Amino acid sequence: MPFPDLTHPALGAYRSSVEMPGDFASFWSDTLAQSRAAGGKVEMVPAETSLKLIEAFDVTFPGFDGQPVKGWLLLPKAREGKLPLVVQFIGYGGGRSFPHELLHWAASGYAYFRMDTRGQGSGWSMGATSDPVGTTPSIPGVMTKGVLDKNDYYYRRLFTDGVRAVDMLLDQDFVDAERVAVCGGSQGGGIALAVAGIDRRVKAVMPDVPFLCDYPRAVRTAGRDPYLEIVRFLAQHRDKSAQVFETLRYFDGVNFARQSNAAALFSVALMDDICPPSTVYGAYQAFAGSDKTIVEYEFNNHEGGGPFQDREQMKWLGKRFGMA
Amino acid sequence: MPFPDLTHPALGAYRSSVEMPGDFASFWSDTLAQSRAAGGKVEMVPAETSLKLIEAFDVTFPGFDGQPVKGWLLLPKAREGKLPLVVQFIGYGGGRSFPHELLHWAASGYAYFRMDTRGQGSGWSMGATSDPVGTTPSIPGVMTKGVLDKNDYYYRRLFTDGVRAVDMLLDQDFVDAERVAVCGGSQGGGIALAVAGIDRRVKAVMPDVPFLCDYPRAVRTAGRDPYLEIVRFLAQHRDKSAQVFETLRYFDGVNFARQSNAAALFSVALMDDICPPSTVYGAYQAFAGSDKTIVEYEFNNHEGGGPFQDREQMKWLGKRFGMA
Amino acid sequence: MPFPDLTHPALGAYRSSVEMPGDFASFWSDTLAQSRAAGGKVEMVPAETSLKLIEAFDVTFPGFDGQPVKGWLLLPKAREGKLPLVVQFIGYGGGRSFPHELLHWAASGYAYFRMDTRGQGSGWSMGATSDPVGTTPSIPGVMTKGVLDKNDYYYRRLFTDGVRAVDMLLDQDFVDAERVAVCGGSQGGGIALAVAGIDRRVKAVMPDVPFLCDYPRAVRTAGRDPYLEIVRFLAQHRDKSAQVFETLRYFDGVNFARQSNAAALFSVALMDDICPPSTVYGAYQAFAGSDKTIVEYEFNNHEGGGPFQDREQMKWLGKRFGMA
Amino acid sequence: MPFPDLTHPALGAYRSSVEMPGDFASFWSDTLAQSRAAGGKVEMVPAETSLKLIEAFDVTFPGFDGQPVKGWLLLPKAREGKLPLVVQFIGYGGGRSFPHELLHWAASGYAYFRMDTRGQGSGWSMGATSDPVGTTPSIPGVMTKGVLDKNDYYYRRLFTDGVRAVDMLLDQDFVDAERVAVCGGSQGGGIALAVAGIDRRVKAVMPDVPFLCDYPRAVRTAGRDPYLEIVRFLAQHRDKSAQVFETLRYFDGVNFARQSNAAALFSVALMDDICPPSTVYGAYQAFAGSDKTIVEYEFNNHEGGGPFQDREQMKWLGKRFGMA
Amino acid sequence: MPFPDLTHPALGAYRSSVEMPGDFASFWSDTLAQSRAAGGKVEMVPAETSLKLIEAFDVTFPGFDGQPVKGWLLLPKAREGKLPLVVQFIGYGGGRSFPHELLHWAASGYAYFRMDTRGQGSGWSMGATSDPVGTTPSIPGVMTKGVLDKNDYYYRRLFTDGVRAVDMLLDQDFVDAERVAVCGGSQGGGIALAVAGIDRRVKAVMPDVPFLCDYPRAVRTAGRDPYLEIVRFLAQHRDKSAQVFETLRYFDGVNFARQSNAAALFSVALMDDICPPSTVYGAYQAFAGSDKTIVEYEFNNHEGGGPFQDREQMKWLGKRFGMA
Amino acid sequence: MPFPDLTHPALGAYRSSVEMPGDFASFWSDTLAQSRAAGGKVEMVPAETSLKLIEAFDVTFPGFDGQPVKGWLLLPKAREGKLPLVVQFIGYGGGRSFPHELLHWAASGYAYFRMDTRGQGSGWSMGATSDPVGTTPSIPGVMTKGVLDKNDYYYRRLFTDGVRAVDMLLDQDFVDAERVAVCGGSQGGGIALAVAGIDRRVKAVMPDVPFLCDYPRAVRTAGRDPYLEIVRFLAQHRDKSAQVFETLRYFDGVNFARQSNAAALFSVALMDDICPPSTVYGAYQAFAGSDKTIVEYEFNNHEGGGPFQDREQMKWLGKRFGMA
Repeated sequence: MPFPDLTHPALGAYRSSVEMPGDFASFWSDTLAQSRAAGGKVEMVPAETSLKLIEAFDVTFPGFDGQPVKGWLLLPKAREGKLPLVVQFIGYGGGRSFPHELLHWAASGYAYFRMDTRGQGSGWSMGATSDPVGTTPSIPGVMTKGVLDKNDYYYRRLFTDGVRAVDMLLDQDFVDAERVAVCGGSQGGGIALAVAGIDRRVKAVMPDVPFLCDYPRAVRTAGRDPYLEIVRFLAQHRDKSAQVFETLRYFDGVNFARQSNAAALFSVALMDDICPPSTVYGAYQAFAGSDKTIVEYEFNNHEGGGPFQDREQMKWLGKRFGMA
Repeated sequence: MPFPDLTHPALGAYRSSVEMPGDFASFWSDTLAQSRAAGGKVEMVPAETSLKLIEAFDVTFPGFDGQPVKGWLLLPKAREGKLPLVVQFIGYGGGRSFPHELLHWAASGYAYFRMDTRGQGSGWSMGATSDPVGTTPSIPGVMTKGVLDKNDYYYRRLFTDGVRAVDMLLDQDFVDAERVAVCGGSQGGGIALAVAGIDRRVKAVMPDVPFLCDYPRAVRTAGRDPYLEIVRFLAQHRDKSAQVFETLRYFDGVNFARQSNAAALFSVALMDDICPPSTVYGAYQAFAGSDKTIVEYEFNNHEGGGPFQDREQMKWLGKRFGMA
Repeated sequence: MPFPDLTHPALGAYRSSVEMPGDFASFWSDTLAQSRAAGGKVEMVPAETSLKLIEAFDVTFPGFDGQPVKGWLLLPKAREGKLPLVVQFIGYGGGRSFPHELLHWAASGYAYFRMDTRGQGSGWSMGATSDPVGTTPSIPGVMTKGVLDKNDYYYRRLFTDGVRAVDMLLDQDFVDAERVAVCGGSQGGGIALAVAGIDRRVKAVMPDVPFLCDYPRAVRTAGRDPYLEIVRFLAQHRDKSAQVFETLRYFDGVNFARQSNAAALFSVALMDDICPPSTVYGAYQAFAGSDKTIVEYEFNNHEGGGPFQDREQMKWLGKRFGMA
Repeated sequence: MPFPDLTHPALGAYRSSVEMPGDFASFWSDTLAQSRAAGGKVEMVPAETSLKLIEAFDVTFPGFDGQPVKGWLLLPKAREGKLPLVVQFIGYGGGRSFPHELLHWAASGYAYFRMDTRGQGSGWSMGATSDPVGTTPSIPGVMTKGVLDKNDYYYRRLFTDGVRAVDMLLDQDFVDAERVAVCGGSQGGGIALAVAGIDRRVKAVMPDVPFLCDYPRAVRTAGRDPYLEIVRFLAQHRDKSAQVFETLRYFDGVNFARQSNAAALFSVALMDDICPPSTVYGAYQAFAGSDKTIVEYEFNNHEGGGPFQDREQMKWLGKRFGMA
Repeated sequence: MPFPDLTHPALGAYRSSVEMPGDFASFWSDTLAQSRAAGGKVEMVPAETSLKLIEAFDVTFPGFDGQPVKGWLLLPKAREGKLPLVVQFIGYGGGRSFPHELLHWAASGYAYFRMDTRGQGSGWSMGATSDPVGTTPSIPGVMTKGVLDKNDYYYRRLFTDGVRAVDMLLDQDFVDAERVAVCGGSQGGGIALAVAGIDRRVKAVMPDVPFLCDYPRAVRTAGRDPYLEIVRFLAQHRDKSAQVFETLRYFDGVNFARQSNAAALFSVALMDDICPPSTVYGAYQAFAGSDKTIVEYEFNNHEGGGPFQDREQMKWLGKRFGMA
Repeated sequence: MPFPDLTHPALGAYRSSVEMPGDFASFWSDTLAQSRAAGGKVEMVPAETSLKLIEAFDVTFPGFDGQPVKGWLLLPKAREGKLPLVVQFIGYGGGRSFPHELLHWAASGYAYFRMDTRGQGSGWSMGATSDPVGTTPSIPGVMTKGVLDKNDYYYRRLFTDGVRAVDMLLDQDFVDAERVAVCGGSQGGGIALAVAGIDRRVKAVMPDVPFLCDYPRAVRTAGRDPYLEIVRFLAQHRDKSAQVFETLRYFDGVNFARQSNAAALFSVALMDDICPPSTVYGAYQAFAGSDKTIVEYEFNNHEGGGPFQDREQMKWLGKRFGMA
């Protein structure tokens, strides 16, 4: 049974029932204010590579609470004026790896920043950023780290890192503040949605098969990890279900989508049993920006559109940012 | 091929080649001194249960760096004089759960304490203790949390909690300081070995199919998690192998065994592919105490001796602690 | 797709369509009469344990056709007057194991009897009771043993053992005949339902994630063994489907539930793919007694409520049996 | 690692260390005498088929203790004089199925009898023979049925059925008593070895990838069921290992091989992880008859030589029985 | 969840929505004409076997484009007049194997031909026929070989081989042209449907759990290979979905069924997750011949009715061909 | 057991026993001569991408027998003089995909060509090249396509394509004929070894975890596909083992290694169960060139060194080709 979730027409008709907390906006503005207040230092060190057409920098910037976060910045060596910016976030378990690995945005004339993911960076690619904060009892992985309290939840820190990355990049003179895009696949797409929902300076968001959307449906529909970390947690902490879903409302891509006015290019895979398509549609249909598009891949699982979607993105963003 | 590791006679002849760091003893005495200096408060609150023969207390005590750690204390309601003490540590991923679940030690006349495991307590039973400390990039689970530096490694905190539990219990007037035993299965056995290796007040140690022993062999022999968390970490952090094994020497059950003078009752399962039997033998053969025994279960995997070994323990300890 | 079966509201609305055979009551009263007539001897031998607060007896009693069946009887050493009784039956493949393993009922002041399961007792715990009766061609396991004829079916013998255990216990002077409860998880819950359906002396029944309910739906819904033993049987004996379901009507928890007037505390797990929740609801909704409650565990598979449900049971039964 | 067991040259050099019980021969002659004394009736009813070249009979004959056992007898419709006989036994879990399914021996001019397997006949083909005898606690399947006592063990009954089938067939006037062969794959091969070891009237035995050989090695080498039923039994009945292996000596193909003077054509598959090749070699090397051959299939698992080996058998037996 | 697809009543009510191409008939008549025009030689060489009642011939005949195709022809040695004919096609991955393996049709008085499958014959039985034609990029297996163009598709060649086999057999004087049947299981059933749809000389068709039916539903419903080869192809060739389904319409059992006027005996298994039952019903309901029957096996997966269905076929065909 | 093959010191001491056919060199020179004689046209069409720093060309060139083969050519837009060349071959089942996907060589100043793989290009990335040649009966996949005759074997065509790609590139004026390197991972590494073994113009070869080496050991050691395609083939074609290994000698990386005088940078993963490390060492130790290095990844399976090895290659080749 290749389709693990709704199919059309039920899929297109689906709307998420995630509730928006009354203090959602203030929770995030307070969080951000507190982290900005914490300050911290930005470092950009030229990275050693064999690349001759592209410059690479090893960047450290202050994320949540001023805690240091890493990333790679790639710039076309031959450049003039201010560049449009693409910030990419990374999928679950991965890290920023090496600068030579994802060159197509810089090779297309963009400033490109790949933000590392705190405490992850070990499962399928290597990271270099610590998460210095611990947790109440949790399931291996980050999905239930601090999940009993919205102030302790892991993703509060990670989403804040994402906005602080934009802060840091907008401080650079080579970045054109009118052409800021965020993107990512899976968890990276979830972070991109969050950043675009919190920060109005983001003009375009390109989430691919995004994770971290429509939790109440996702944990009851997904067939594989990481959403099932939450299921396993609740299988032991049998009395904590309400408390957990109360926290998750503050971190749900559906609620971030409701806040965003960026242009959006989503992609979704109809055989995806990690990020079930209805949860992606839940976020897409809730997305408040009027320039929004979704690309469907009927026969794909969580790998989604892969290089086909890269091409879609380069075309779609090029048109909007004058790079076509 | 049911046997995943050496069989006899090679198994009995195996000796671990783990190296003892020169500063092993001072590392642990410094760690302990620092945590004792941090102080902290002990609380014992009667627990609500339906039990009529056994009293249960919900205990909070200061563990590593004074951080609060939970546990259940069970005492026979009808008791006289000082009681022998059994402290049990818990397997990987579990928590202290409820007080009614493991009654045989208290029902046999012992003071019994089940220590919770910081930050775990979600995978197969519920815990209530936080681990407030974060981590460098790591694999889901605790095996690689802070593994790049011996001072940051997760098990530095957990093993210290174990010794601090003994500190707290020896302060209670119902405990007979001459009859202190520690035990546990798998990770619980690893903690028991560590506590018995650090703390000479422990008179008996009963590790069942112990985990956290003979890392260099274990990560190259185990067929299933959690040792393989380290393999997956090194599969990405391809340049960190020496650094990781340098840290692990300070947390290896083989080295703790070399320090201990307690009486010891080990058990080992010859079809165990989680804690390969050679790694258990590695610790057993290195164990310095002269009153030591190992019970073999030829046809068991990691479940080991189960209730058969419970009975062995009750008989063996009863004889040594005058409870037979 | 974590939910293998109906979810609410369809789940709550589901009613089993199992048919009640006209001679159901007489089939069971005849069976019981014949076994009682066969007589047999009761033996209670003190069991060797290290327990000091609880007395344990190794019991042999005459079950179906007078065939000897084993069990452990546990009594609080300090006791006065007649005790309320809890009889527990065991899950599929298990046996009575050792007396020290499940102490919470005796430690709470109950007489507690754990009945062994004939011919099983090898899969996950050890038993000591033979099933001297053979079978027509069958699938490994007991689900299709003698399934072509209701008089030959394995569960005719096992359910009769359960009632005969109550017979034997009510003959003991320490048991209060007005406070008799039966319980069990999975197969144990199915036996408990059967015994409470056959024997009106049972005042309370506590089936957890009960097995052996609503066969026609169960064999078409379960995702894992043991219900699938029946599927595999019918996959070869392609012409025997009607005959098999005719037999199973006499052994269906739904039909036993229709006969019972005990108080009932059910539990069900909504992600259970061994005993699908609709089959549990099938029995629960059919349960004839008016004091009935069901506890749901949304995020659990067949492990169900575990220690949470133990606590529910101790509270619920304590209230009804004056032990709170 | 496709080879689950020894490879050459170690494979060819391997000799089983199974011990021959002193009373092995008398155990079997007593068993047989007792079953022959029990008597019982033979029935041969023409079977309804569409076959025009072959006659089929539905046979019932007295097996162990006179208990009725079924089989199909196939004879070439056009026949003259006495026919050579091939008796085939069936693999684990299967039954005699339908007469039209295995025609090549009858179509080649042999009298062919396929004996049903008591109590099995449900797993992959359908049987019609009951096993009226029960069991001490056992693992699903027949490997541990009655395994604690050689007189109760399941295979005592099944092997006796095999010899009694030969008895019955030699009573028929169409059978040439000088040309009797037995064969079978896996469990069928094990039965064939047993029958040829007990009964000197058998002139040729053709075991393919035989099961039930060299138990002490088999249960420690096999990677899949059914040998592992014994491992699972011993994993719970941790104190019964010696008792179990004491029983198994009386049912070991290696010991039967030591008794046989028939001509033998073995086959073995070097990637077989159900019946590891060393256990087959164990029986082959012990085989006492001087006309013995073994055919190896290097790249096969338990399916062995399949139709290639059928052809080998027809050629090999044809030459010995004058049918080439 | 044992039922991977629709169950009754939805199953019986299902009708396939596969579209019939306007040039379907001409595509196949052109294909056939071209292959007949290519000519080629027929060879029938007596096969070496030990069979005494049945003659076997190793046949080579010209298939698609005159390319040589193999098969076994079996005839009752004792025969008179013209024989009814059964042509069997083989399941996915198999080959014709040896002549002694499937004797029941010949032993029942039929001329029986088992056609080899070009280029397969390696997965579960051995074949001897090449497919000399290559392919555009494809997934391992034949499902996507040449799938981008109906003229290049693998099954164009294989189905044509099937009709050419009938051509060849009708040229033989021992065949009764009024009694020609085709059959097969899985892929063999799909070929049988195709041949019966293309060639009106076929009087009876017996497809068991047929494959290659109702592709648009099949690739979205099947849980296991080989339909999923197409899913995997489209997962990479994300832009080729329309093109692939356009090709498949010319090879869909539903469309062949719409063309056929033979008598038909289908079988279907309701737990079949390789050839989902709705796709079989899709073909059955579309079947144009008026003498049609379907046999259901509720508790079987893709093994279907096995020997039960063999018996159904022998009875059903015997009645229609005067062989009862 | 994470290590599926030999470990050190046995691993380093291992030498392959593959035999070199006497006509190996002439077989390949004849093959090449014939393909060169077949001629064919080269096409280079600018590819549509958004890349601004790199030019991409869609190349078609004549491969084996002049059959058209595709590839992507990437050149730094800003370039001067002749460029060093890197030709990359692709792993099993993949295709050339899109030009934007692997940019690091062109971004480092090299001319970079990624050759498509005939008939594959569907399993994990998309290809565009047909293999117009068919096959004798084979297992799904290409490993047994035509394997019964060295002239028909699939890899004869694919390896020739590789040499013809070098022919085509050396005809371009932007390529420096003194600085030609070939590389690839897994199958790509096997092709690279073959091309470097056939064609002395290749100055550097960088095979990562190479496939297609030391077949006799590989098919008996690998734990996963694709080597096991050969095992499955021989499991059915039980009489073809010698014939298959005779063919494979002509396509074995060990024999190509014996012919090469290029500089070589190998990588090997010690937990690789697809391309077992001993088979890689077999080729490495046989490699005839004197400037050879092997990089080991102890804790990796077939993913090998990943981006770590990319960096090694850029450094190693940069030093040799004056690009550091």
